[in-house]
Parts: sequence; C-alpha cells; structure tokens
Amino acid sequence: MTLDPRAGASQAPARPEILTHRIGDFEPELGGSLTEVVLAYETWGELNATADNAVLVEHALTGDSHASGAPSPEHRRGGWWEPVIGPGKAIDPDKYFVICSNVLGGCSGSTGPASVDPETGRPYGMRFPVVTIRDMVRAQKRLLDDLGVTKLALVIGGSIGGQQALEWAVEFPDFVDRAVPVAATGALGPQGLGMSEIGRRAIMADPNWQDGDYYDTGKRPDDGLEIARMAGMMTYQSAAGQWERFGRRPASRSPIHREQGGRFEIESYLQYQGRDLTSRFDANSYLYLLRAMDLYDVSNGYKSDEEAYSQVKADLHFVGITSDWLFPAAEVKESAKRAAQAGANATYSEIDTKSGHDAFLKDWAELKEAIKPPPNRT
Amino acid sequence: MTLDPRAGASQAPARPEILTHRIGDFEPELGGSLTEVVLAYETWGELNATADNAVLVEHALTGDSHASGAPSPEHRRGGWWEPVIGPGKAIDPDKYFVICSNVLGGCSGSTGPASVDPETGRPYGMRFPVVTIRDMVRAQKRLLDDLGVTKLALVIGGSIGGQQALEWAVEFPDFVDRAVPVAATGALGPQGLGMSEIGRRAIMADPNWQDGDYYDTGKRPDDGLEIARMAGMMTYQSAAGQWERFGRRPASRSPIHREQGGRFEIESYLQYQGRDLTSRFDANSYLYLLRAMDLYDVSNGYKSDEEAYSQVKADLHFVGITSDWLFPAAEVKESAKRAAQAGANATYSEIDTKSGHDAFLKDWAELKEAIKPPPNRT
Repeated sequence: MTLDPRAGASQAPARPEILTHRIGDFEPELGGSLTEVVLAYETWGELNATADNAVLVEHALTGDSHASGAPSPEHRRGGWWEPVIGPGKAIDPDKYFVICSNVLGGCSGSTGPASVDPETGRPYGMRFPVVTIRDMVRAQKRLLDDLGVTKLALVIGGSIGGQQALEWAVEFPDFVDRAVPVAATGALGPQGLGMSEIGRRAIMADPNWQDGDYYDTGKRPDDGLEIARMAGMMTYQSAAGQWERFGRRPASRSPIHREQGGRFEIESYLQYQGRDLTSRFDANSYLYLLRAMDLYDVSNGYKSDEEAYSQVKADLHFVGITSDWLFPAAEVKESAKRAAQAGANATYSEIDTKSGHDAFLKDWAELKEAIKPPPNRT
Repeated sequence: MTLDPRAGASQAPARPEILTHRIGDFEPELGGSLTEVVLAYETWGELNATADNAVLVEHALTGDSHASGAPSPEHRRGGWWEPVIGPGKAIDPDKYFVICSNVLGGCSGSTGPASVDPETGRPYGMRFPVVTIRDMVRAQKRLLDDLGVTKLALVIGGSIGGQQALEWAVEFPDFVDRAVPVAATGALGPQGLGMSEIGRRAIMADPNWQDGDYYDTGKRPDDGLEIARMAGMMTYQSAAGQWERFGRRPASRSPIHREQGGRFEIESYLQYQGRDLTSRFDANSYLYLLRAMDLYDVSNGYKSDEEAYSQVKADLHFVGITSDWLFPAAEVKESAKRAAQAGANATYSEIDTKSGHDAFLKDWAELKEAIKPPPNRT
C-alpha cells in the first residue's frame, strides 16, 4: 500500500502521531458530493501477514483519532480510551492492529464542514452535504482497504461510535468478525432527538453562526456551541450520578454570566464543559455529527430493522448502561433482541453504574468486562 | 375590605376577570426592595361568614391566575385547571372561595421585572431583586389578609406551584388546614438545576437580551426564550411518553430553521412550544421564576429540612408522578417521608402515568383522585 500521510488535509493536525489519508471522491448517501476527502487516523500495533488482526475503534461525538496515548500538551487527558488500549489491556496492540479514524464530517483532521472545498477554495460551511453514520463507515472502509486490512477482528465504540460499530456489521457483513456497539441502539429515541434539537437551535440562533459562514469573520458561534454542549452533557449523565457528584452544592468556579442568588456547582460544571469544547471543536462539525446521530436508523435503506439485522454475520454484542438516558439500556437490550430475532448472533450485557451514558469513558473495569469476548470464543 | 381592582398594575392585563391588588412595599428575603407591589388574581365562589373556606391554587412556571374559565380569545385553552375547578368538580366554588394569583416576579399582571419601577419610571429588568418561593408566598399572604381570608382550607399546585403549597405549610403553619404539593420536592435536584441553566444561558446569550434592558429596544430575546422553553419542555415529559406521542415520526409542521436531512416531529413540537411561549411571556420574568424554582430549599432559613418540616401543622399531602424527571416521584416520596419523620402529618400518593411532570396539567382523572382529601376527613 502507498499512503501519503499529509496529502490533502485541509486542516492537517499539527500532531506527528496523526496520519491522514486521501480517500478521494465520495458520494454521501443522502445526496451531494465531496472531492479529495481525507481521513485522519492513528494506529497502534502491526497488521499481521493474513491482514485479519485489525481492530477498529470508533470515537464518540466530539472525540478524535487519539484513542490511545499518554497525556501530552496536545492531549492533556491522553488517549480517550487509554485504559482500554495498550499492551496487556483489553485491546492489545501486541496482538492487534488497532486503528482509530476521525469521522467524516469531523474537525480533527478528517474532511468536514470546516475544510476548504477544493472547488471553491472556501470552507464548506453548511454547503457540506449531510453525512450519515453509514457514510462514516463507508469512508472508513476505503481507508481500511487502502491500509490492506482484509477483515476486522473487532469494531467497537460508544454512542455514535456504537452506531458505527453496528452499521459496520450491517453494511459490510463479510468484513467484520465481531462488532460491539456500546451505549447505542438501532435508532435514537425522541428524548435524545429533542436534546439534539436544543443544541442545534442554540448554534443556529447564535448571530456569529452566520448560516455557517463564520470562518473568515473573526468570530465564532461559541455561545451556541457552549449551550449545545451543555445540553449534550445533560444527556451523558444520570440523575443519581449528578446527585452524588454535584448535589445542590455551591459553585466552586467563577461565574461566566450574571449571577442570580448564588450559583450551583452543576451550573459551573456545565459552563466549564461548554467553554472547554469551543477551544477544540468546530460548531458546524458539531451540527453535522449530531445530525448523523439523530438520523441513524439501522433500518434505513431496508424494508425493516429485521431485514437490516438479518444482514449481520459478525458476532454482535450490545452493551447497555443501566443509567444511560441518551440510549437507555432497555432500548439497547431491545436492539439486541431484535437483531437476535432476525437471525444475527446477537448478545447483550449491561454495565451497572450511576455514571450514565458516559460510563464508556469512565467505568473502565466494568467496560473491560463487558467488551471482552465470551469465554467460548477466546 | 376595600380593593382597587386596577391600582398600580404596571402591566394591567386587558382581561375583565383579572383583578389586581396593591400590596405595597415588599422586602424580598435575599435583599433589595420593591415599592407599590401589585398582585393580579382571580377568584371563584364566595368567602363564607367564618372566612375559612378559601382554597389557594398555585400556578406553575409559565402559568397565570386564570386557573378556571371557558376558552376565550384571551385564553384560547381556557383555565389551566378547568377540569379541576368548578361546580361539582374536585375544587368546587359552590363550597369554596377559590383564589389564584399570578406570582410575584411574574408577567401576567403581578409586579415583575417587566413592570415599571416607580422610582425610576423604567422597567426593572435585571434590577428587579431576586425573589424566592417564600417571597411569592409572603406576598400572597398579604393579598389573602386583605381579602379577609383567615384560613386556607387548601393550598395546592404543581411544580413551582407545589413548592409554594409546601412553603405555605412551613411559613404560615396556623393559616393552612391542608397543603397538597404536586410534582414538587423540598429541593430541586442537580438534573433540574442543569436544565434550568441551559435555559438561563440561552436567554442571557441572546444579543437582544441586552442584560435585561430590552423593553424599549423594539427587540426581544425570543431566540433565547424559545431555547429555554424547549429545555423546559424536555423536563416536563417522559421518554416513554415521547416515544408514544412522537416516536421518530417526521415533522408535520414547517421548519423554523435550516433543515439537515429531514426533520422529526419532536423537533417541530419543541419549536412550536418555544415560539408559542414568546407570544405570552417575558424573558426576564422567565429567568426570575426559573431561579426561584432552582433556589427553593425547604430548609432555607432553618437548621435543617427536619426543622422546617417540623413547623407544619397542616395536613401535608405530596403527590408524585411516576414518570416525572424534573421532580422524580422517588424524591417527592422522600420529601413526604422526611416531613413525616419531622412530625408533620405528611402523606404521599402517586399518579402512575407516562405523561411525565406535565401530568398535573393532563391526567385529570388520576389527578382528581390524588388530590381529594382522605376518606376520614371528608
């Protein structure tokens, strides 16, 4: 294979460990077209001689390709799945060729709305076509093909990473040996859709958003993105977890807006999380990835979810999180049941925690237990 | 008693059924002062000779004094508790003198941030002092005193109306015979506080908000208020109820903002609810009432919630709603338990429904069953 690690990245990340690969023209399934598409990615370990030891790790909404790695100035928290990926860990680069790529539509090296459209010389903005979970998976398939991968031993991820893991099993049944969607279902429910809409509305209402053409204005829709992030954070945690962590305790950080009779810690936490995201994420990209999450329905393009699930040949293991209210455990379990009814080798396990949706980025011991292959397959 | 039905109302409602009463100067408990405070109110039925047949009905966040009444051009949905209040209904004006007053800080006839400050001749805006649930109750007490009421046979309400019902029992123990907080606890949890913060942030981020001084600009922070309302609506419904009502069905209304790959009904519902509120509600008032909800803690001013509950002499009946996530039933039940442990005659019942928090404005049969006095007291 020949790869040009820097080719065509319109927003090439200034991080030596991140590679970029030009996958070329791309036709998103809902229309429009993209040229000179680039995916940023990172790898750990080596592809074996039979090219079938690859593990694809899928990141969540605001994640990136840096799934593994020690903390650094660029990644002050280190890899977002560092406790999961590494020698002797659940996903071991001594055995597997581990890949994580920034999704199509993202803003961490892959082509997205902040990228320059080669045909106009200006950032796409909202002229970027709507991309779906399936588009993300199809783009990744091209990258894996070019890397010489012939089979995925495992594809795994949480949230929209879980949607991608599921879609891999449906879209490329012969390419996937095992798929593990964590905290994801066949389709997001109305409560999640509603919370997305709050975020979308907040970004689009920000006067700095300028219908997405803010890149050369010197202003960014930070207020809107902050509010969207706050709404997102609410869906990532549980009531019980928030009682434990925040309760009604007074704020420990300085206020970012006018105070009204004191402030609570949960408020300053949300404000901090909102502000933090604006320093590393593009608002348009947030809109596109959020929409991909909303629109994903495993049955899209099929007569029913049953027909979609019946495509699956991989072992399909769903992991639910008991206190998740974005993708409730009962709905994850129902997806596993539907898949099994459709003939897929689908199983389900649960992480019992107060951490909410975010448990897949926090509850390491429980996560590692949940994602390990069943005993009869190791 | 002498009442001047129009005295001093800075935003006198153009509805003949609404009365206003000047309660005079008022010192909010957290500081600041108000002069010439007016409360708007409506009544049904007559005060009896012993002046002890009064029922005070407390409205929720964006409600008003119009608890009962047939639909009219001004109130196209009619009274918000019409099925509960009326001859032969759960609260019968043939037996009781029923009163509902717009809260202090509101925008439906009572003095609030949109009112003109008599000392400056300009609307208060954010110079309006922070008002608490206790302040609302203390202001209502003045109104009831002036109306000649000597005892409340019942004080009842849902959400912040429930907080007020509870506070009445704590603050004026000898004045209340029975208090029924519905869908309210001794203190809002962090998940509710977080959702409030999203709304607050959205209003304050709206450039039209102008730190609250938008009244003479010709522009209103409608985007911010719409987003705040959307966040509120999410807390008023349950996941199960939203699946039933909206599912992932496509939108039936026109979009109000840029579309991204189709639209869902839950989105257009939220957009509609947001827009609808801006036609009848003041954004600053929303901020103040939301803050009163956040800040309310039955233990405020006492050593503990136990000490607060120990003040109560009324029958105190909490009503929880099984699918409520703003004031979860388990927390309402816990409040009842704490009150009983403190020596109050506190009881608890539950409305089993998918309607979520809003059940107290929807599930009429269950509500009427829950709020009726226990058999041994009728």
